[in-house]
Amino acid sequence: MTPPTRPETHLTAGAERDRLPFRTVELAEAEPMRLDSGATFGPFRMAYESYGTLNEANSNAILVCHALTGDQFLCDPPAEISSRSGWWTTMVGPGKPLNTERYFVISCNVLGGCMGTTGPSDVDPATGHAWGPSFPVITIRDMVRAQALLLDALGIDELFCVTGGSMGGMQVLEWMVCYPERVFSAVPIATSATHSAQNIAFNEVGRQAIMADPEWHGGDYARHGTRPVRGLAVARMAAHITYLSETALHRKFGRALQDRSAPTFGFDADFQVESYLRHQGATFTDRFDANSYLYITRAMDYFDLPAEHGGSLVEAFRKVSARICVFSFTSDWLYPTSENREIVRALNGVAANVSFAEIETDKGHDAFLLDEPKFLRTLAGFLQGAARHRGLS
Amino acid sequence: MTPPTRPETHLTAGAERDRLPFRTVELAEAEPMRLDSGATFGPFRMAYESYGTLNEANSNAILVCHALTGDQFLCDPPAEISSRSGWWTTMVGPGKPLNTERYFVISCNVLGGCMGTTGPSDVDPATGHAWGPSFPVITIRDMVRAQALLLDALGIDELFCVTGGSMGGMQVLEWMVCYPERVFSAVPIATSATHSAQNIAFNEVGRQAIMADPEWHGGDYARHGTRPVRGLAVARMAAHITYLSETALHRKFGRALQDRSAPTFGFDADFQVESYLRHQGATFTDRFDANSYLYITRAMDYFDLPAEHGGSLVEAFRKVSARICVFSFTSDWLYPTSENREIVRALNGVAANVSFAEIETDKGHDAFLLDEPKFLRTLAGFLQGAARHRGLS
Repeated sequence: MTPPTRPETHLTAGAERDRLPFRTVELAEAEPMRLDSGATFGPFRMAYESYGTLNEANSNAILVCHALTGDQFLCDPPAEISSRSGWWTTMVGPGKPLNTERYFVISCNVLGGCMGTTGPSDVDPATGHAWGPSFPVITIRDMVRAQALLLDALGIDELFCVTGGSMGGMQVLEWMVCYPERVFSAVPIATSATHSAQNIAFNEVGRQAIMADPEWHGGDYARHGTRPVRGLAVARMAAHITYLSETALHRKFGRALQDRSAPTFGFDADFQVESYLRHQGATFTDRFDANSYLYITRAMDYFDLPAEHGGSLVEAFRKVSARICVFSFTSDWLYPTSENREIVRALNGVAANVSFAEIETDKGHDAFLLDEPKFLRTLAGFLQGAARHRGLS
Repeated sequence: MTPPTRPETHLTAGAERDRLPFRTVELAEAEPMRLDSGATFGPFRMAYESYGTLNEANSNAILVCHALTGDQFLCDPPAEISSRSGWWTTMVGPGKPLNTERYFVISCNVLGGCMGTTGPSDVDPATGHAWGPSFPVITIRDMVRAQALLLDALGIDELFCVTGGSMGGMQVLEWMVCYPERVFSAVPIATSATHSAQNIAFNEVGRQAIMADPEWHGGDYARHGTRPVRGLAVARMAAHITYLSETALHRKFGRALQDRSAPTFGFDADFQVESYLRHQGATFTDRFDANSYLYITRAMDYFDLPAEHGGSLVEAFRKVSARICVFSFTSDWLYPTSENREIVRALNGVAANVSFAEIETDKGHDAFLLDEPKFLRTLAGFLQGAARHRGLS
């Protein structure tokens, strides 16, 4: 709960970032990628990580798609890049559900991100300045198109599985729909086929907090040598509350005071929950770019899979051929079970091979990142079954 | 949804405010009021409104306590003060549940507010400058103590009823506990005896948004001739989401676009829900003072009725003598039924005369402000019954 003495991540851009040991691939070099907005984009750089070994048949690859503020580091990143742990160490590693002794696990930083993949903090070669607000607005489908180019570059035609939670789950759905022939199995977790009004509203609060910061400078803060860290911290604080359940917040903090025995009758962080939130806000700004936050939340808000298919989610899923297991968490109020069940219902509408697991937990949306034994065991079981069907035993 | 062309309220302070037709009383003139913090405060001014006529026995008074951003104007205020409607016109008026043909309904702006009662935007007589951050931190109990002084000044010994929703409900609980002999009946609505970790967290986000605004100037913005309107707008937007249920937001807006047929692939308010929130944020700053927002949310966070009574809510209620009806709303996730039920349970623990009504509605916390027939009917019935017992037929 004590503020850290050094940044969690070396948030850098341009030439400075080029010196860090990101694993990257240049994509869309021959021809630029067409975006949903109608614009074209490229060439661009995609940063990725992999864990385990690709087998000779190239048939054991699992793609993990990250959430809004995630990145490619499922396991711990190199110290030069970050002092944080990987975000999915409960799930990925030897003997873990995404067993790196059996599977080749890949993860990449999304297009528009700030961990090595081209995003608004990078230099636009056409101007020699950071893209900033001239970076094109992208969609979840654009992120997935870029990932498909990465797999092409890595020589992987078919994924044994694609998985991810939250915004990662939206990417999983797009993979199932856009590249049905490339997806053998899919595990969307704690997600939605249509971003809800409430979730758009929370994202908008975060964006407005960033844009209200005078150091945002209309998005051109790189040119001004500033960073809208105060607005970004507020955005993170608001979002962070939505990741936890009321019960989890209560259990974690209740009304406990921070390093004091009585309230101070002031505006310091009297309560531990205040101190925790301030810390979450402050450390987040060490590792995340404000414009990336704007662009990625915008992509989430635009996500509406039925709308991309004439208004019908069943139509969207018409060509899906993967074996699918959808997960939700009982105390997740950001992507509640009801929204995940919509996905399952529409998949049933095309007689897809789908199962549904609602995990009982009081940890809220963040449960997909945590050590939830029933979740981990069920997911491991699904993958083992799928592996047998794929002949990966 | 179109931004208004004039301010909703003439938010003013100091000499300018003195010219507006607020009904006010000077209180604590003989001796200052002791605050929970240990400080003393006063004299101070309290702005109030009344509707209906006090009977000869002074026995038909109902005190209505307002919520965080409410005020004394239950019915429409004078045009010079505000162009907004009163906030409880569904409840208060001739023939309404708080029937002004039968009852004398009083409401006052809370201590620390910005609608005529002394608050941080007023001038500290000791310095000649706005109080700003030197205003004392107050509690819900302090607000109620000030209201008791107001009733003394108005010559009202006993309230026939005290009611209010949300933070207003917290004041109702303090009335029941601090002045049991002055409360014949009480109706706490959509509230809690202990402000939860989640609610502290949301309040803290709002406060951080205000404090992150460079125009806040450590709270001394009056001296700098500025107002932290951008931070205050973000605070309001975040809070506003919590007042509505997910269902209400979905029904009201869904993913409908604002004045356009396709997304713009930009950061304008593409979605109606974004436009609505921005409007809520912007108009709020016309009528509310940022420091009042800080002080009042702090008072809510400090609210912990059991803690004031040795950790036991049952102990807190030991001397309660009022007839009580507690209301909650099924879709209220800010002050959920479970928290209201805690109040009822503790009142049962002292064999109080208490009933509980959970109203089925999908409108969220804001339901207490809206035309909810079952809610209005049940509350009217409770009051009629209590009136018979009080001999007010």
